[in-house]
Amino acid sequence: MNEQPDSTPLWITLLPSSRRVQSAVGGTLLEVIRLGGIDLAAVCGGMGTCGTCRVRLLEGSLSEITPAEKRALSPQQLEQGYRLACQARALSDVRLEIPPESALEGYHLQLEGHGIAPVLDPLVIAVDLALPPASLDDQRADLSRLNDVLRERGFADVQACPSAAGQLAKRLRNHNWQVRVALQQGVDVTRLVSTQVSGNPLAGLAVDVGSTKLAIYLVSLESGATLASTAVMNPQVAYGEDVVSRIAFANQKRDHAKLLQRSLVETINDAVEMLAAKTDLCKGQIVDAVMVGNTAMHHFLCDLPVEQLGAAPYVPVISAPLEVPADEVGLKAAPGTSIYLPPNIAGYVGGDHTAALLTLHDDQPPGGVQVLVDIGTNTEISLLWEGEIVCCSTASGPAFEGAHIRDGMRAASGAIDRVWLEADGVKFSTLNDAPPLGICGTGILSAVDGMLGAGILDRRGALRETAPGVRRGADGLEFLLVPAAVSGHGRDVAVTRRDVNEIQLAKGAICAGIEILLHEAGLKAEQVDRWVIAGAFGTYLDVASAQRVGMFPAGAPLERFQQVGNAAGVGAKQMLLSRGRRVTAAQIVKRVRYLELTSDSRFTDIYMKAIALEEAG
Amino acid sequence: MNEQPDSTPLWITLLPSSRRVQSAVGGTLLEVIRLGGIDLAAVCGGMGTCGTCRVRLLEGSLSEITPAEKRALSPQQLEQGYRLACQARALSDVRLEIPPESALEGYHLQLEGHGIAPVLDPLVIAVDLALPPASLDDQRADLSRLNDVLRERGFADVQACPSAAGQLAKRLRNHNWQVRVALQQGVDVTRLVSTQVSGNPLAGLAVDVGSTKLAIYLVSLESGATLASTAVMNPQVAYGEDVVSRIAFANQKRDHAKLLQRSLVETINDAVEMLAAKTDLCKGQIVDAVMVGNTAMHHFLCDLPVEQLGAAPYVPVISAPLEVPADEVGLKAAPGTSIYLPPNIAGYVGGDHTAALLTLHDDQPPGGVQVLVDIGTNTEISLLWEGEIVCCSTASGPAFEGAHIRDGMRAASGAIDRVWLEADGVKFSTLNDAPPLGICGTGILSAVDGMLGAGILDRRGALRETAPGVRRGADGLEFLLVPAAVSGHGRDVAVTRRDVNEIQLAKGAICAGIEILLHEAGLKAEQVDRWVIAGAFGTYLDVASAQRVGMFPAGAPLERFQQVGNAAGVGAKQMLLSRGRRVTAAQIVKRVRYLELTSDSRFTDIYMKAIALEEAG
Repeated sequence: MNEQPDSTPLWITLLPSSRRVQSAVGGTLLEVIRLGGIDLAAVCGGMGTCGTCRVRLLEGSLSEITPAEKRALSPQQLEQGYRLACQARALSDVRLEIPPESALEGYHLQLEGHGIAPVLDPLVIAVDLALPPASLDDQRADLSRLNDVLRERGFADVQACPSAAGQLAKRLRNHNWQVRVALQQGVDVTRLVSTQVSGNPLAGLAVDVGSTKLAIYLVSLESGATLASTAVMNPQVAYGEDVVSRIAFANQKRDHAKLLQRSLVETINDAVEMLAAKTDLCKGQIVDAVMVGNTAMHHFLCDLPVEQLGAAPYVPVISAPLEVPADEVGLKAAPGTSIYLPPNIAGYVGGDHTAALLTLHDDQPPGGVQVLVDIGTNTEISLLWEGEIVCCSTASGPAFEGAHIRDGMRAASGAIDRVWLEADGVKFSTLNDAPPLGICGTGILSAVDGMLGAGILDRRGALRETAPGVRRGADGLEFLLVPAAVSGHGRDVAVTRRDVNEIQLAKGAICAGIEILLHEAGLKAEQVDRWVIAGAFGTYLDVASAQRVGMFPAGAPLERFQQVGNAAGVGAKQMLLSRGRRVTAAQIVKRVRYLELTSDSRFTDIYMKAIALEEAG
Repeated sequence: MNEQPDSTPLWITLLPSSRRVQSAVGGTLLEVIRLGGIDLAAVCGGMGTCGTCRVRLLEGSLSEITPAEKRALSPQQLEQGYRLACQARALSDVRLEIPPESALEGYHLQLEGHGIAPVLDPLVIAVDLALPPASLDDQRADLSRLNDVLRERGFADVQACPSAAGQLAKRLRNHNWQVRVALQQGVDVTRLVSTQVSGNPLAGLAVDVGSTKLAIYLVSLESGATLASTAVMNPQVAYGEDVVSRIAFANQKRDHAKLLQRSLVETINDAVEMLAAKTDLCKGQIVDAVMVGNTAMHHFLCDLPVEQLGAAPYVPVISAPLEVPADEVGLKAAPGTSIYLPPNIAGYVGGDHTAALLTLHDDQPPGGVQVLVDIGTNTEISLLWEGEIVCCSTASGPAFEGAHIRDGMRAASGAIDRVWLEADGVKFSTLNDAPPLGICGTGILSAVDGMLGAGILDRRGALRETAPGVRRGADGLEFLLVPAAVSGHGRDVAVTRRDVNEIQLAKGAICAGIEILLHEAGLKAEQVDRWVIAGAFGTYLDVASAQRVGMFPAGAPLERFQQVGNAAGVGAKQMLLSRGRRVTAAQIVKRVRYLELTSDSRFTDIYMKAIALEEAG
């Protein structure tokens, strides 16, 4: 099997879509498929460890099976032609099947959230003005002319970047010297953001930059109403599903970091364009933006180095509140628009957690004892009591995203999201009621809870070999959820012992984080007045199941749990609409004490106990 | 003579250099030659009116002679094969001669100037620091860590743009947490400009962006010394020699304005790279910049619209002091570098005049009565007395640049720069002692003075037909300076009646401007204590000649004239080295009263009288 000369391009046909992509010999299938613009899951960022980028060879020849593939795929899968796209390279024209669980479609996204409506006091305001026209007797510069009129109206002098000043010059002359100016009223300086046709409404953007999804809100700065919103996949998923993989990718070379930055901003621009069109606004009417995300997303967005985030001691470059020109980031908006990024708390607790914490605060710190849990690949947890806040981040891993689970998948169409073990067998529901393809995070948690209740699993996570539905498969004991005949792809969907262990590690990390915070505060779970569970997984989670498998402490009454949806997005909107909320957010962060669990002497003991499948605490 | 099909590229061979450029049929010779990277004079910006882009066809065929060419070239020139490059198009492969007076080589540039050395107090300072390394017990963000140490040292907290913060992160880790930071100490905020290896010297740039030449100074911010300097042609000359032509070019389409911006900044970058290499600095050690230029150059540099500068009432977009990120302009320097542009005074009096005025000021307004004259295509004039400043701009036109003069040329090699009419005939000197090719500004002024003294010219500018050396040529009466046998190109060099008239208009404009300012202040020329003549032409000018032909008032004693060279460049350096000088410059501009001559009822009368060739006042 000789390789063809490098210069001959090969054709790779992808089924079921029949799309064709061309490649020179050399690149991995993953690289080639992504260059062709097709999203493929790759949880580990192409390191050959997660197995989520599997594809099936139908025709043609690929490079030899690598040791990584032998570890990640079962002998049966290899025999059926399954390969890891991140490992295999085409040696001839090939036809590949992209199995539905590897494609990223119909993904379950969370936009809504709860939170108080802030007093409307946006940073950027509109002022309608009529300026005296320039003449040979009155040759004041445009900006001086504007400032003279603003001063008469009681405003501070404005400064303008060249692009905003240039727009002013043109608009004044095109609109007979009657215009609306958007002014950013900063602490030290007032800036001209844009010049509009008189009366044109002004809008702002609130963006929650999640590792897997972006929630984007177009908000009226005059009414405070959300005019339109959308959720889209974070395009960086194509370069690694979790933050650690993406940092590794960015560290490979400077171009990679740039690619991560650009792909993110381009996706936001595309989404904003769509939202603007929907609401009959033009992008020039967008005059302010607030973006929140974990510290890595914050750094990627601003093109800050992430190398030092990826290794101990996990230090951010900037944690203070940051205002960056939209231009510099590449966000398309009115010429003088700034993007506000609220402060980060630590290397693994970013401005999104700040925003989520903000939603728990009125002008005053909240009364009582509260726990905020924002579940993701990293789960950020804060405990608030008597004006104090202690916070940690715990590596709950990607199992709740369906990764590292043999038949796992993202919360997309066909994912089993809930399981009931009833007398007459296994019942389940799937997302979008599609035929089952695999199990997503809430589904696997629900299955584990059911198996535990039915005695199929013991507390240590071992499957009882003699229990009904349990069988020995290629990966050891497994519990069959969906037989091939019923599934959407003609293959069995089962829960393996290793899958159960992944869930134990994930839920144990969350549980241990909560326990350490309670310990730090000298409080018991019973004393917590409110458990605020945020994020998409947290929203769809069955709290009772989660408590029974030991994700949350046993002592917490169910009615004290509140699933709030996208708290970070809500907090971002509040900061967009109110200068006061930005100040409050910065004050909150100053009160937060961050606990680094990786160097906390209590952590290992508590974690080891927390991985048992039993009610915690 | 049929045109070849559009798709066939043609070869254009340029003599004497024998360079070849390729063109598709369609573009003018001027466009093709410039695309080939060859500088060609084109005073009017390719409008077919100035005649400076003339070339001679040696072989091949060109498009038909246009009416513009018939106006701009004499029948004799047309017969010899001369054409205007901006009008003619190639219809076949052609061989063209670029006559030396059309090429831009060996141009006479002015770098030096006089001025006080300001107190060294630059905006950007260096601070050497040792930071405590990050650890799991000390996870402060890099910027917070820096600020904590700066605070201990008595500095204000710094803000950082992402690129400066990113550089900080990398340098801290590469240099064992011992670094030098460059801090910009602004009024409201202190900014991190860059992070250097400890002890690395910091430098700044002062740039005088003239319409025809750029003077660029690399200055030590620690010693105040000019480390290196250079003068290069403003590349925008290729798109029109004067500001009005360039504004017209920029107004044609958005791309043109961008092209003018980029060509300017790229030329500055190239020059700075050369200066940095010469002084063993890297561009990252350049942490501040001050740029001065007329209002159009200011606007081009910042990519501000210039349309409104080109038509009454000639209003700048911004006249206030402006600080723009170097990044935004495209200037290569340390990541957080800003460019400071001092305030403009009016649409035709820019920050370069502000800088020149600054050189006349100590901390206090200068004593006595002073007149500052900065001669160019537009001549800016200021009169200073008793703390008051009144200022005007007058359209002296490009005659002093050798344009609109039949045998005129720029002050380049071979230009006649001084003429003596002696008993035994005409004597002259040329730049670089090269064989004479044409007459530059100082040469034509000197010739007119000599002709006047010898009685060849009368006060109205008419040549006496019977005077020796006067003959009737294709353009009416003319005075022969250099016969073909002696010239560098084998053609006569003469002064025509029309040339004399051009000089009358130019010197009359300057004289009228001075008179109106004196009138406005109720002063007489005798009362002026100092006449400061700035700019390249002003430096090489023979003041006595200029006074005799009526450019300067008769009542001004010669010893009160001071030819100061590049005053704008000197002022720019002062502002680079001293925050106080920036404040003084801004205060000066607030005291300046600008007189718009185009709407001044006195102007026409005074101007009409001032064009006579006699001592004024």
